[in-house]
Amino acid sequence: MTERLSVAVVGAGYWGPNLARNFSASPDWDLAVICDLDEERARNVADRVGGVAVSTRLDEVLADPRIDAVAVATPARTHHPIVMAALAAGKHVTVEKPLAADRALGVEMVETARDKGLVLMADHTYCYTPAVLKIRELIAAGELGEILFVDSVRINLGLIQPDVDVFWDLAPHDLSIIDFILPQGLDAESVTAVGADPLRTGKSCIGYLTLPLAGGAIAHIHVNWLSPTKIRQMVIGGTRRTLVWDDLNPQQRVSVYDRGVDLAEQSKATTSDARAAQISYRLGDTWAPALEEKEALSNMTAEFAAAIRDRRQARTDGASGLRVLSILEAARGSLETSGAPFPVQTTTRLEMA
Amino acid sequence: MTERLSVAVVGAGYWGPNLARNFSASPDWDLAVICDLDEERARNVADRVGGVAVSTRLDEVLADPRIDAVAVATPARTHHPIVMAALAAGKHVTVEKPLAADRALGVEMVETARDKGLVLMADHTYCYTPAVLKIRELIAAGELGEILFVDSVRINLGLIQPDVDVFWDLAPHDLSIIDFILPQGLDAESVTAVGADPLRTGKSCIGYLTLPLAGGAIAHIHVNWLSPTKIRQMVIGGTRRTLVWDDLNPQQRVSVYDRGVDLAEQSKATTSDARAAQISYRLGDTWAPALEEKEALSNMTAEFAAAIRDRRQARTDGASGLRVLSILEAARGSLETSGAPFPVQTTTRLEMA
Amino acid sequence: MTERLSVAVVGAGYWGPNLARNFSASPDWDLAVICDLDEERARNVADRVGGVAVSTRLDEVLADPRIDAVAVATPARTHHPIVMAALAAGKHVTVEKPLAADRALGVEMVETARDKGLVLMADHTYCYTPAVLKIRELIAAGELGEILFVDSVRINLGLIQPDVDVFWDLAPHDLSIIDFILPQGLDAESVTAVGADPLRTGKSCIGYLTLPLAGGAIAHIHVNWLSPTKIRQMVIGGTRRTLVWDDLNPQQRVSVYDRGVDLAEQSKATTSDARAAQISYRLGDTWAPALEEKEALSNMTAEFAAAIRDRRQARTDGASGLRVLSILEAARGSLETSGAPFPVQTTTRLEMA
Amino acid sequence: MTERLSVAVVGAGYWGPNLARNFSASPDWDLAVICDLDEERARNVADRVGGVAVSTRLDEVLADPRIDAVAVATPARTHHPIVMAALAAGKHVTVEKPLAADRALGVEMVETARDKGLVLMADHTYCYTPAVLKIRELIAAGELGEILFVDSVRINLGLIQPDVDVFWDLAPHDLSIIDFILPQGLDAESVTAVGADPLRTGKSCIGYLTLPLAGGAIAHIHVNWLSPTKIRQMVIGGTRRTLVWDDLNPQQRVSVYDRGVDLAEQSKATTSDARAAQISYRLGDTWAPALEEKEALSNMTAEFAAAIRDRRQARTDGASGLRVLSILEAARGSLETSGAPFPVQTTTRLEMA
Repeated sequence: MTERLSVAVVGAGYWGPNLARNFSASPDWDLAVICDLDEERARNVADRVGGVAVSTRLDEVLADPRIDAVAVATPARTHHPIVMAALAAGKHVTVEKPLAADRALGVEMVETARDKGLVLMADHTYCYTPAVLKIRELIAAGELGEILFVDSVRINLGLIQPDVDVFWDLAPHDLSIIDFILPQGLDAESVTAVGADPLRTGKSCIGYLTLPLAGGAIAHIHVNWLSPTKIRQMVIGGTRRTLVWDDLNPQQRVSVYDRGVDLAEQSKATTSDARAAQISYRLGDTWAPALEEKEALSNMTAEFAAAIRDRRQARTDGASGLRVLSILEAARGSLETSGAPFPVQTTTRLEMA
Repeated sequence: MTERLSVAVVGAGYWGPNLARNFSASPDWDLAVICDLDEERARNVADRVGGVAVSTRLDEVLADPRIDAVAVATPARTHHPIVMAALAAGKHVTVEKPLAADRALGVEMVETARDKGLVLMADHTYCYTPAVLKIRELIAAGELGEILFVDSVRINLGLIQPDVDVFWDLAPHDLSIIDFILPQGLDAESVTAVGADPLRTGKSCIGYLTLPLAGGAIAHIHVNWLSPTKIRQMVIGGTRRTLVWDDLNPQQRVSVYDRGVDLAEQSKATTSDARAAQISYRLGDTWAPALEEKEALSNMTAEFAAAIRDRRQARTDGASGLRVLSILEAARGSLETSGAPFPVQTTTRLEMA
Repeated sequence: MTERLSVAVVGAGYWGPNLARNFSASPDWDLAVICDLDEERARNVADRVGGVAVSTRLDEVLADPRIDAVAVATPARTHHPIVMAALAAGKHVTVEKPLAADRALGVEMVETARDKGLVLMADHTYCYTPAVLKIRELIAAGELGEILFVDSVRINLGLIQPDVDVFWDLAPHDLSIIDFILPQGLDAESVTAVGADPLRTGKSCIGYLTLPLAGGAIAHIHVNWLSPTKIRQMVIGGTRRTLVWDDLNPQQRVSVYDRGVDLAEQSKATTSDARAAQISYRLGDTWAPALEEKEALSNMTAEFAAAIRDRRQARTDGASGLRVLSILEAARGSLETSGAPFPVQTTTRLEMA
Repeated sequence: MTERLSVAVVGAGYWGPNLARNFSASPDWDLAVICDLDEERARNVADRVGGVAVSTRLDEVLADPRIDAVAVATPARTHHPIVMAALAAGKHVTVEKPLAADRALGVEMVETARDKGLVLMADHTYCYTPAVLKIRELIAAGELGEILFVDSVRINLGLIQPDVDVFWDLAPHDLSIIDFILPQGLDAESVTAVGADPLRTGKSCIGYLTLPLAGGAIAHIHVNWLSPTKIRQMVIGGTRRTLVWDDLNPQQRVSVYDRGVDLAEQSKATTSDARAAQISYRLGDTWAPALEEKEALSNMTAEFAAAIRDRRQARTDGASGLRVLSILEAARGSLETSGAPFPVQTTTRLEMA
């Protein structure tokens, strides 16, 4: 029997209670302490998991040698100082999205973790849902063939956030998922972003992101705070099959369609017109794989523990957090240049591992 | 009792039989002749409506003084010569989308019709569906308030067309509908188009069109030939209410949501931050208006007759066809410049009537 | 190349035009004549299939030696005399549901056809839809295991018929389908029927039919003219898998769920309590087979021709029509005895072939 | 400010934690103690609501004069002794469904509570969901007109219970809801029940209940443990409008259809045939009322407190629990007599208040 690891949850706001509940229920972890500047908030969270210790002093928490790891769920602008302090104290870290408020800070965090041999994990929670894990597995096994397009829609009547626009609020989910499921990760070299602020709130409430992928494929993301209906759907088209993930259909979240356009094999080298002529259609079966009933955060805490024990990168490592951040920054650049394609900054060594 | 008008259907391919059936059943029209270069195709269509005359000679059809009007359902590249000949012969014309193969030809057609005092109608059939007529009526009555955004998705496993890309094949539907329902019509001054051709067929099979509208609003269209699931959905967000049109849900095609974001009235002149602070949410009732059960083409033929009799422009007139064409051409320009926003050409006199 | 058979369509009302269109388009058949007492109605139908002959004289039609078969689509009360005359004239017959206005007449028709070696087919059109053919095939192949229950719902805002109640109007569809897909056919020995007439129209507008099947299984049918929403759904539970047929979901009409309750094999002989203790659950994949896009009536006309050529019973033969009739009569009996179970009359020789 | 009432939760199994959480969060209540024979189970529940006292001694709990009320969530067979003891101790009581294991015991409980002037509430939780409260309100306001039929479906892959059949497990939900929303309550005088046990588990796993209502209306309930798909839908047809409650559609749980069959007013006294001739159809709008986002149990605890303070019966009082019990017993009778209609026992004084 492996010994449990010890974790501190830092931040007792919206997300902290979920982290606390899952670390508390995990066979891999001992939840040691809830840390928040507001003691009552920390106490509240601690009470709900059966009376864990609380602290308002991050420095004391980090100084405690019994604590192996820190889970950070504080506002984005505080991620960098907290994570850097935790790494300096020799703690492994998992941190809520986005990794940092800007890319340069994220790069420093990732490099520091690597230099110190510590796990820095991006808590891209959606990637640990049974649906996304299954999608990744199917793509890796070649079930969809080569990926042709990814179209993601995440729209809902949403709170207009005071400090972020709809891209920074919602698109990290889609970006981290796409990064996770594509074998090559999110390798777009440029981004086109178009936003709209029809209520004149000072920031985009509706956003469209286009990412050309390698080999002529494309990813597109629609995020929207003004839609009265809630849609969370991703269509992933491949040369062999196409997959639709409808996250709001609990009875059939993932459907794999054996329908599509076939190209005669020999036509691959010929001209476009000849190719068009050799296209045919398949209208085959649909298949919906059974999905495990398991909470995503429970899978996340297990992966965090496994990465620490196996001395490896987590599946959603700091580099994946950095790729998401790079796309968001490029999107900001595209918005500022009226929707022209904007190059994505990359640091090959870090991000393309 | 008004006398019936007499019409010739030109083109007996995919769309011609539908025109023939509807003109034949209309109380406003006598269907005089089916004209096609291929006599057997013409005969086939004629037989199915109870034995109308057929002809392979357009010149003879146009020379017949008993014929008042011509309905053109031939390939796009032939629209210009056929329509110009029909106008020259003094016939009123309704023509399938797109109006012409390029904008300059379309301008000539519209100007000629106007100079001769003839009706030139764009057969934007979707605009005559009970759903779209109801949407136009609701917007005109102010039920949605000011329009903030239009998001249209039209995706399906579709035939890869030999001569047009997915934009020219599918987007005319969305564009003509948006033009029809917005009080000011489709007044975008620029277009951003991003396409993908992941099967290397030589043309876009997936396309995204973004159209900034007046006052900070936005329209976005997603067209796709590679989706295994069929979606035809338009979300129209307004300051008062938001409407969702799901054309594949016969039990509830149009839903009006009294949900949305409210701005305190007095805040309109203040700063963005102050405005954001004064935003609140409404989660009100949903309402689905009853829709007439009527075929769109039957409404179209009635409108064509009414425009001729009242000596007025049709609801979907040549100018609306021209606006659609202008957007498609601007989209082509955007595609050729890697997705940069491309200006829409307009001729105020014609198109902004 | 097989020679075509020649058919007369008798009855040019609601269903006749569909028969005419399909016989006319079939490679197996020559449509010889449309026969109706009302010549204009007959002419109308004939015109729409390109000018077939018409007749108002059934005797002349039946006397014509070139005619091999007759398709009867007249009101139910006329089925018996027309079919008996056709059989007497040596014609094969397909007849719309219900086979006859009462069971005794149906028995006479079936016996006469058998004695004369003629095909008497029940035109249970639904059985020839791609969905139902697939369901029959899956059950026959053992994909569902033994059938445990069939639950069928067919509700809609419907016309209140002057001469039949909701059972006789709608339930023949469900009954003929269940008879078709179950390996043993509809073998219920008794029927419980409960109806309601809350608008006091003099007949049931809402009906529930329960049919105990062999081995403890059950079939249940809900028919309703007063529902504002349309539902056409059948759930077929088996020991291995359960199938759901949702006829109003064109994108996924048939779904096969590999979910269910498993009994440990050895427990079959033990007591109930022990059995209950050994029950476990399977939550496996869902699978939706691709369905051919083909009109049911086109399959029906092909089967009619094949049965005649192969000198065999049609898949939906007179006996199946008789089984449906027997259930409807038993339902009437149950209704008249306040919903008590009522025995189903059978004639083993005919119906249990 | 009203003083809080004090409550003990008895039973820390499946339902107890929900009761504890809601009483604990209620402004009306102090949660005094969690009582269970198994101290650890009690402690577990107590910990999750922030450290309430626990007890394994019901007698001590009932002897405590500071406790005003008891919420019972123990197995059905223990309801009678626990509730009788609580009433004897002068406590108000709310008790989980079913009220008691048989009707005679339930009658004694209701009579005792009435004689002692104590509130005895049936915890029919579903009745306190925003959807059901809205439905009751709409019916009471006459929005549906007179009720013609209620059709309820509650099917799902369910655990086969060791001690109850599918009727006793699931139908109490439907019965209590129907009793709650109908102005006259559940006044059926007889019940027809048909069950099936195709897996030979010794009890019905599939059940159909038919309840004739006053004035020719009908209620029908389908409960099923063997369905791979989950359906929870109730259709309530009225003379003015029809309502559909789809509990699994969070975006539109309640839809009111202004569609139906109209009878000309004057025809009410005429013959059936004349009436049928005067029936016409309305295909009007659909309307989905906004529903409050509130947990049902929170509404239940508020109603319990209000009934105690106002010295009145709770909305779901003991008599309603008794009516549900009476139907279940009649259903058992019908099952035992092969599905014949079975009379419902009533005690007018108690149940028809």
